[in-house]
Amino acid sequence: MHRLISDFFVPAFDLSTLNDSAVVSWQATGRVALTTDSYVVSPYFFPGGDIGLLSVCGTVNDLAMAGAKPLYMTVGFILEEGLPFEDLNRVLASMKSVSEEIGVRIVAGDTKVVEKGKGDGIYINTAGVGIVHDEIELSPKRIKPGDKVIISGSIGNHGIAVMADRSGITFDPPLLSDVCPLNSLVDLMLDTTRDIRAMRDPTRGGVATTLKEFANDSDCCMILHEETIRVRSAVQGACDLLGLDPLYVANEGVLLAIVAPAAAEDLVTEMRKTSAGAEAFIAGEVTKSPPRTVLYRTTTGGNRVIDMLSGEQLPRIC
Amino acid sequence: MHRLISDFFVPAFDLSTLNDSAVVSWQATGRVALTTDSYVVSPYFFPGGDIGLLSVCGTVNDLAMAGAKPLYMTVGFILEEGLPFEDLNRVLASMKSVSEEIGVRIVAGDTKVVEKGKGDGIYINTAGVGIVHDEIELSPKRIKPGDKVIISGSIGNHGIAVMADRSGITFDPPLLSDVCPLNSLVDLMLDTTRDIRAMRDPTRGGVATTLKEFANDSDCCMILHEETIRVRSAVQGACDLLGLDPLYVANEGVLLAIVAPAAAEDLVTEMRKTSAGAEAFIAGEVTKSPPRTVLYRTTTGGNRVIDMLSGEQLPRIC
Repeated sequence: MHRLISDFFVPAFDLSTLNDSAVVSWQATGRVALTTDSYVVSPYFFPGGDIGLLSVCGTVNDLAMAGAKPLYMTVGFILEEGLPFEDLNRVLASMKSVSEEIGVRIVAGDTKVVEKGKGDGIYINTAGVGIVHDEIELSPKRIKPGDKVIISGSIGNHGIAVMADRSGITFDPPLLSDVCPLNSLVDLMLDTTRDIRAMRDPTRGGVATTLKEFANDSDCCMILHEETIRVRSAVQGACDLLGLDPLYVANEGVLLAIVAPAAAEDLVTEMRKTSAGAEAFIAGEVTKSPPRTVLYRTTTGGNRVIDMLSGEQLPRIC
Repeated sequence: MHRLISDFFVPAFDLSTLNDSAVVSWQATGRVALTTDSYVVSPYFFPGGDIGLLSVCGTVNDLAMAGAKPLYMTVGFILEEGLPFEDLNRVLASMKSVSEEIGVRIVAGDTKVVEKGKGDGIYINTAGVGIVHDEIELSPKRIKPGDKVIISGSIGNHGIAVMADRSGITFDPPLLSDVCPLNSLVDLMLDTTRDIRAMRDPTRGGVATTLKEFANDSDCCMILHEETIRVRSAVQGACDLLGLDPLYVANEGVLLAIVAPAAAEDLVTEMRKTSAGAEAFIAGEVTKSPPRTVLYRTTTGGNRVIDMLSGEQLPRIC
């Protein structure tokens, strides 16, 4: 275990000591965001990413959605006996690379090993700490009728990339997960306008679940327009094949923002200048009634009510 | 999943919202301690505790060892399909109870479910954030020849309680894990003297491993005196039976402190007034040479060199 830590983990991360706690200097006061997520994605290498990349981006994105600048992360590994060291090394390398790109410091870590058959290769938990930007107040309670719904990219890519890989379905060109850090995109958005009401990254449960949460918390109705929603044809095809609705499929590099109407067009224009936001679009708007409802308005003018997914969600997508 | 969260997790913890991040107010500046641990103990209920109690105490104790006051925690669950809800509820209840006793707030959480055979009931990751007390500087680098080694209680109880339970060995009276929060004991110790050089809780790898780390980091020798070491007879008996050395067995409610010689006796007297420190004792002292060495001085005057455990440590003890 000592060798595992000193040979693999210390070089990959910012672990200056082997103490059980990292002590960092802290000058900011105000508001601090805290978050955690466990990652059990299967397979742990998937088209467009791996569990390590996912675990760093997921936590950074959760902080960014609260309007927080990600500062520090912790990481806990649960490794199954027999895991090839080269797999662990590849996962650590991608965590190191993306955390350096983001500028978030992984300062504390832990590793446990479980017997064969009591895990599945690699499970990762990450927790993150960030400072909330001054004057930023993001909350679904601030959503008002008339606001616009912005989605930062085409939807369903992560979930379908993982599910298709698991099902042996291939695409030409390959369909990649959208997993990526969203903190720079959020910085740009907050610099562009102060009229963002709420943000969330529609991971598990997809766009539908996030909008339903927003509808419930704001007591408003969210209307999505079918013709605006960007879904890649490969994703739509795989969804048809697997009996899935892209609105419920997990994304790992997409954000959903509710924005004051006057700010929406300019914001989307700015977002499109970035790689994470290159496919940003206005997906719909907020109305007063029916309250606590999400409606999907089809191209033929019909309305479909979108609810929380009542059956089982896709297992082990993240 | 929504029902699991709202019925089980929100009542148990301080989750005011279902946002992906918790935002808390933060006024302190100075130094902040961050830590994380994953818990995979088997069985997840064991004599004297459970995985939930362990996960809160473990993270709180890691913060306390850095001289930090524990403020916030996050918790991530990896649940195996088929886990009885009453087991989950019992674990959550013990997390709620001990976190309230400590005064640490569990503000963010996450749950993943894996298929039967890809986990083992419950795995938990906790991460913690705390403020380091002003003027406190704890580091093995501060250890000097002449310092005393203090251990806060009899050793090996946690590891043997779990191992014996797993092996079907019972004791009369029952042998219980020592798992408990150490933050109040640390507060008292830091109030009693500023001459504590370093503290660590000897969990995985036990007292031997912690002392070897201290010896390496301080370039000193740590001498333990056999006749001072408190090991319960049940623990010694089980160790003999299982072929273990109590010095290497995990503790979850014991701390090891290196203290300036003049402060040691009074400190132990104060520690013994608390429940966590009722069995505190001076276990040995620090000498200049041989450097980076731990010696076990037997009652007959012999010296045994204590090294890191080179073989396999007890699996899934914490």
